[in-house]
Amino acid sequence: MPSSPIRKLAPLAAQAKKEGVKVYHLNIGQPDLPSPQKGLNALKSISRTTLEYSPSEGYAFLRERLCGYYAKFGISLTPEEIIITTGGSEAILLGFFTCLNPGDEIVMVEPCYANYISFAKTAGVVVKTVTARIEDGFRLPPVEEFEKAITPRTKAILLCNPANPTGYVYTPEELQQIKEIVVSHDLFLFADEVYREFVYNGKPYTSALTLDIPENVVLIDSVSKRYSECGIRVGMLITHNKQVHDTVLKYCQARLSPPLLGQIVADASIDGVEAYARSCFEEYKERRDFFIKGLNEIPGVYSPMPEGAFYTVASLPVEDAEDFCRWLLTDFRLNGETVMMAPAAGFYCTPGLGKNQVRMAYVLKREDLAQALTILRKALETYCK
Amino acid sequence: MPSSPIRKLAPLAAQAKKEGVKVYHLNIGQPDLPSPQKGLNALKSISRTTLEYSPSEGYAFLRERLCGYYAKFGISLTPEEIIITTGGSEAILLGFFTCLNPGDEIVMVEPCYANYISFAKTAGVVVKTVTARIEDGFRLPPVEEFEKAITPRTKAILLCNPANPTGYVYTPEELQQIKEIVVSHDLFLFADEVYREFVYNGKPYTSALTLDIPENVVLIDSVSKRYSECGIRVGMLITHNKQVHDTVLKYCQARLSPPLLGQIVADASIDGVEAYARSCFEEYKERRDFFIKGLNEIPGVYSPMPEGAFYTVASLPVEDAEDFCRWLLTDFRLNGETVMMAPAAGFYCTPGLGKNQVRMAYVLKREDLAQALTILRKALETYCK
Repeated sequence: MPSSPIRKLAPLAAQAKKEGVKVYHLNIGQPDLPSPQKGLNALKSISRTTLEYSPSEGYAFLRERLCGYYAKFGISLTPEEIIITTGGSEAILLGFFTCLNPGDEIVMVEPCYANYISFAKTAGVVVKTVTARIEDGFRLPPVEEFEKAITPRTKAILLCNPANPTGYVYTPEELQQIKEIVVSHDLFLFADEVYREFVYNGKPYTSALTLDIPENVVLIDSVSKRYSECGIRVGMLITHNKQVHDTVLKYCQARLSPPLLGQIVADASIDGVEAYARSCFEEYKERRDFFIKGLNEIPGVYSPMPEGAFYTVASLPVEDAEDFCRWLLTDFRLNGETVMMAPAAGFYCTPGLGKNQVRMAYVLKREDLAQALTILRKALETYCK
Repeated sequence: MPSSPIRKLAPLAAQAKKEGVKVYHLNIGQPDLPSPQKGLNALKSISRTTLEYSPSEGYAFLRERLCGYYAKFGISLTPEEIIITTGGSEAILLGFFTCLNPGDEIVMVEPCYANYISFAKTAGVVVKTVTARIEDGFRLPPVEEFEKAITPRTKAILLCNPANPTGYVYTPEELQQIKEIVVSHDLFLFADEVYREFVYNGKPYTSALTLDIPENVVLIDSVSKRYSECGIRVGMLITHNKQVHDTVLKYCQARLSPPLLGQIVADASIDGVEAYARSCFEEYKERRDFFIKGLNEIPGVYSPMPEGAFYTVASLPVEDAEDFCRWLLTDFRLNGETVMMAPAAGFYCTPGLGKNQVRMAYVLKREDLAQALTILRKALETYCK
């Protein structure tokens, strides 16, 4: 098992904090925005006296409510097509176990969410990658590169849209290209759409479930990011493919049930939170504009403008970004403060790629982002001397 | 993936309920006792406004409090040796992934908790079994049978104590035998001790962690059963073996974090609940005495007296207990009521074993158990005609 590039430097950060250093966390997509008050209130009004198992597939009331949510995005579902999982993480892992045998191959766009690689390893699945390039703004690599990556053992493509870690939002044309590849090779399409509500380009969002390949698509979703409820561990695996659904459900039965309390909070958070969602959206958009502009003003730093999610992958004027990230935690202080970032190499499968890049999440409030930018600028000046 | 024998008949039960039939659930270890009021109160007083990720290994405050809990059982631990998991289920699965390679073998006593078999399958691990017999009260099979089951590929033994599904409590002598096998073959010992507090024989309980083989033991635990908090999904994986701990932690980092809300409830439930624990204990003990006596009074039914947990495996005067269990749900009604049980064959690995047995959980209140016994007696009379 590889260490999580997002969390592997955590012991160094913990040590710095022990020494009284303030650490700005740009490394992890842990939103600082409050969860919706409706969700928090639901906890206060729980009247049940036994915190019992929920059904393995999750409560029907939550799955029914989610159908209404997806309908707003033009996605037509029945509650029987939704399985509640322990976060999006479990949805991915169980999707892999269900659709892929050990030795099967899955094609991903790199840089990709690092834990996909861990989950693939856990399931004995071989990851093949096509590389999105920072100089192209991390857009979809050409179809020919996918064709080159596909072998007789390829069983699936995974696409995260909007993408973590790059924030790239795939265009309808790119999604059509993916659809054609999926159809012509008869592949599963794992579509991770947990950042669906964070698209800043003003264009309508295209879900993989609207591509008209219902038997191929396994949708991964989660309430973690959209309601700032990462800790409640409520995700979903959604598919029209009955055979996939039924096998995932068997895995779910083995682990008994998803978290009861999280389901109660999630259920209360879905409806009637339009004002909340809008304010989160505006907040992230403003932070993005501010943060990416600030990054690009630091000499030697380059970040494309991400159109979605709340991450960016930026290149730094260093040879080894991991060494720089470690040094920030162990050695560098600006008035007793420093910054934690995730070295981007861990988001690539191809050795050597992304060595001078970092992934940053703009999930801190604006004054903290400003301070983090100041620290980063000073740190680079010192480190690069 | 095999279907869970505990939940596979669930659709039939759901159908019966739709038709207005009352179903007594003896199939699943879902306690009906209330969770501790302290745990429930903790939910009302949550003041945090963002339901954020917890650390991958779980909150330090909870792990510290657990050290105090284990100390009462003579188990000396540091918080760094405890990893909080999403229920005991995740602890087992990650323990398998960590300690066993695909193709490795694990020896279990059958009948065993059916989901062990599912988790082993998920990890590509081969399950070998030694058979505990109903006529021996499900005591530990002789050492020679373990020796016969062990091959060069055997890497671990799993022991659930008190045992699910039989309720058997292993004696100190039996645990010494297990220890000797573990040491002589250099195996891991997975010790599932989630029913530790439900031992009715009045004798002191021996944890695998007190066997003085610290590098071999991987303890699986959970608050689900002891606090009637199955739905909060808080378990633990505990080991003195640093290498195992560190690898499990990598898997935990990939899935980000265990449930936040469950940890808050569990933390509040551990201390100052002596009166609660005593009343649960007394309640289960009374139910056991009542239920097992009632079972053995039904012609052709035999159940040993389980000394722990809240299950029993009983033999019925039928050829195919699964058929009987299905028939109960689809065809048999006594005044509009019926009983759901788990066919025991799914708890055995050896084909053909346990075909006339069922697992029952006595987690219903006494009058419901009485009614379930009446239904079972009448149903057997009708079915066996």
